[in-house]
Amino acid sequence: MTPEETVDRFIELLCSKQVDAACELVDDACEYDNVPLGKQFGPEGIKALLGPMVDGLDEVVFVIHRQAVVGNLVLNERSDRFRLGDRWIDLPVAGVFEVGDDGRIVLWRDYFDANTFNEQLAALLA
Amino acid sequence: MTPEETVDRFIELLCSKQVDAACELVDDACEYDNVPLGKQFGPEGIKALLGPMVDGLDEVVFVIHRQAVVGNLVLNERSDRFRLGDRWIDLPVAGVFEVGDDGRIVLWRDYFDANTFNEQLAALLA
Repeated sequence: MTPEETVDRFIELLCSKQVDAACELVDDACEYDNVPLGKQFGPEGIKALLGPMVDGLDEVVFVIHRQAVVGNLVLNERSDRFRLGDRWIDLPVAGVFEVGDDGRIVLWRDYFDANTFNEQLAALLA
Repeated sequence: MTPEETVDRFIELLCSKQVDAACELVDDACEYDNVPLGKQFGPEGIKALLGPMVDGLDEVVFVIHRQAVVGNLVLNERSDRFRLGDRWIDLPVAGVFEVGDDGRIVLWRDYFDANTFNEQLAALLA
C-alpha cells in the first residue's frame, strides 16, 4: 500500500469500529498526538484511548474534505463525527500522518479545538 | 507562481508584517476561517483582523513543519509565533489553503485550539 492507502485504510477500519485491526497498521513507536489534549504512544496507547470510546458509540464517521500527500506524509482536513443514539458530535479536525518505510503509521497528530469537542461530548452524554 | 509558491510568499509577507502586500495575493471573495473563532472574508477582512494585531507585535514567525500540495490545495502544519517584548505566543496550527486559477488565495483555514491561543495572549498582554 502507498502511504495514502495506508492512512485511508486505517481510517476506514477505525470508522468500522475495528480498532485492533486498525492498529495492525501502526508502528510500535507511533506518536498519537491530540494536540490540545495530549499524546499516546504505540498501538496500545491508541487502543487504550480509542477502544472504550469507539465501543461506547453507535457510529463513527471521518469525513475527509481535503487530503494532500508528499512522500510518506499525508495531511488531511476532516469532520470527525461520533453518534450516540440520535445525537452527534461533529468535530472539525486537521490531521497529520506519517508512514514509516515499513508501511506502518509512525505519526498521527490531530489539530482541533478542545472546547468544541468537550462541549459536544458533554451534550452527547447529558 | 505555483499554488505552493503563492502560499509561501503570502506567509513570508505576513511574517515581515507587510499585511497589505500579502493581501494582494488574496482573492476578493477569499474565506479566512479561524475555525474555533470565526470567519473573515476578502482582503479587507484579513486586514481588519490581522493588521492591528501585526502592528502591535514586535515579531511574527510562522514555522512550517510539514507541507503537502495537490493541485491548487496546500496543507501545512505550523507553529505560529508572535513576540511582544521578550514574551512569545507559540501556537500549534494546521492550515488549509486553496489558490484560485488566477493565482490568488481563495481559502485560508487554520485549525488550532482557541484556549491555547487565548491563554497565551492574556499572558502576553499581562
